Amino acid sequence: MNSGTDIHRQVFFVSDSTGITVETLGNALLSQFDHAEFVTTTIPFVIDATQADNVVARIDAAARGKRDRPLVFSTLADSALREILSRSNALVLDVFQAFIGTLERELHVGSSHALGRFHAAADKASYEGRIGAVEFALNHDDGAGIRSYADADTILVGVSRSGKTPTCVYLAMQFGIRTANYPLTDEVLSCTTLPQHLLDNRARLFGLTINPERLQKIRSERRPGTAYASPSRCRTEVREAEALFERHRIPCLDTSAASVEEIASRVLLRTGLRRNAY
Amino acid sequence: MNSGTDIHRQVFFVSDSTGITVETLGNALLSQFDHAEFVTTTIPFVIDATQADNVVARIDAAARGKRDRPLVFSTLADSALREILSRSNALVLDVFQAFIGTLERELHVGSSHALGRFHAAADKASYEGRIGAVEFALNHDDGAGIRSYADADTILVGVSRSGKTPTCVYLAMQFGIRTANYPLTDEVLSCTTLPQHLLDNRARLFGLTINPERLQKIRSERRPGTAYASPSRCRTEVREAEALFERHRIPCLDTSAASVEEIASRVLLRTGLRRNAY
Repeated sequence: MNSGTDIHRQVFFVSDSTGITVETLGNALLSQFDHAEFVTTTIPFVIDATQADNVVARIDAAARGKRDRPLVFSTLADSALREILSRSNALVLDVFQAFIGTLERELHVGSSHALGRFHAAADKASYEGRIGAVEFALNHDDGAGIRSYADADTILVGVSRSGKTPTCVYLAMQFGIRTANYPLTDEVLSCTTLPQHLLDNRARLFGLTINPERLQKIRSERRPGTAYASPSRCRTEVREAEALFERHRIPCLDTSAASVEEIASRVLLRTGLRRNAY
Repeated sequence: MNSGTDIHRQVFFVSDSTGITVETLGNALLSQFDHAEFVTTTIPFVIDATQADNVVARIDAAARGKRDRPLVFSTLADSALREILSRSNALVLDVFQAFIGTLERELHVGSSHALGRFHAAADKASYEGRIGAVEFALNHDDGAGIRSYADADTILVGVSRSGKTPTCVYLAMQFGIRTANYPLTDEVLSCTTLPQHLLDNRARLFGLTINPERLQKIRSERRPGTAYASPSRCRTEVREAEALFERHRIPCLDTSAASVEEIASRVLLRTGLRRNAY
């Protein structure tokens, strides 16, 4: 495996809250190093000195006997805890420190250095926004709940396995967007007009399409050897779906090489829907 | 609203990819400033010089006539694009630059400076891991799919509105964890033994509980004035659920003041399940 150039590093993500922000940022930065290999560990909810001491002990134990010191990404807000962490035998990348001083100077105020802020606690607005949107997605999955389509922020349409459901769920959870999804089945594709509940909400429709080969691969993993997963059926469905999008002027996006995050972000960009933050 | 101390700032999150990493980090940092108010805009998928020029024009237009310059958080990987962005009349906090040089020196290699890496594209493992987990959550929501409970990484149990469904969906989407959830209804709570499909998977069970007042508030928003939302019913259900957790030694977590991120992270910490990164 070309071990001379490969790098196999221990990486720790340390947080006084969930660790999700720091692991997302850390993984994003590490993804810039193509030939490196990392073993990552997230240590969330570090909120007192005893815990911070234990984290240092754990990091130093991981460092022992290794050629390279571990990398530590940290979002600890408390100065005392950050000081403890800095004593480890690792390279500590302190995300909080990197920006908070600059922000304090710019905003002419001190920050609260409050623990656990890297994701705020649930409040009513957040509960209704996200949890309501997640429920909406579940209640309007795969053609369900068509009578309340008028309450949807957007309605994803596409053939089976074009990525509708995960996109709906992600839009709800990450951005609080209420999304329904409706499958373009043979029946729908063979009609010259759209079903009435789609026509009534045409401005909300957004199409997902996919490369037929990719679709065939995904369907084959689930139902190998079926007509559903056949190359010809995949090609026909995708061609008809794309024709339908064009005929009805439904904006559309190719999901073939995109992550769920990318599909969701592009849908928001194209529809102009607001990205809520939680 | 105490406008002398309040700060109302324009904030831009600029990314060559989805913008999710940079807006998560930026919002986390801004949440440290209690008395400040921010108006945030995310500009994703900035991948060429023309787009970067347009972003600068947009930022500078927002700055015009304002007392305070905008804040810009950026995760652009391309040096030329970062240079263009730095010409704006804003305070630019360059997340990429803050860490990538240190990492390059530590890892003794150059980074790829590849665009769009802040969330990697879909591959097979990722598709199966996350999408499969999201499907699992949807197919095993609210007591469904009990026959495949043996395939679950964990099974959340709790009274109606204790936070089971959003936690399952979040565990799936963020961490690729397969989670089922089973409601502790009156019927279940009134029995002395657990249903067989729960007994068979006792090691996978994880309880969610909630403050009865908080539960009553949530239920009242959905079904005001019903027995379901009554204080006495909420108190009884929570008491019986907690007794059940204790009787069967099911680990349990209070979701009352916790965000979905926090509940999910604590479930992983307590169960020892691996946090996959996507």
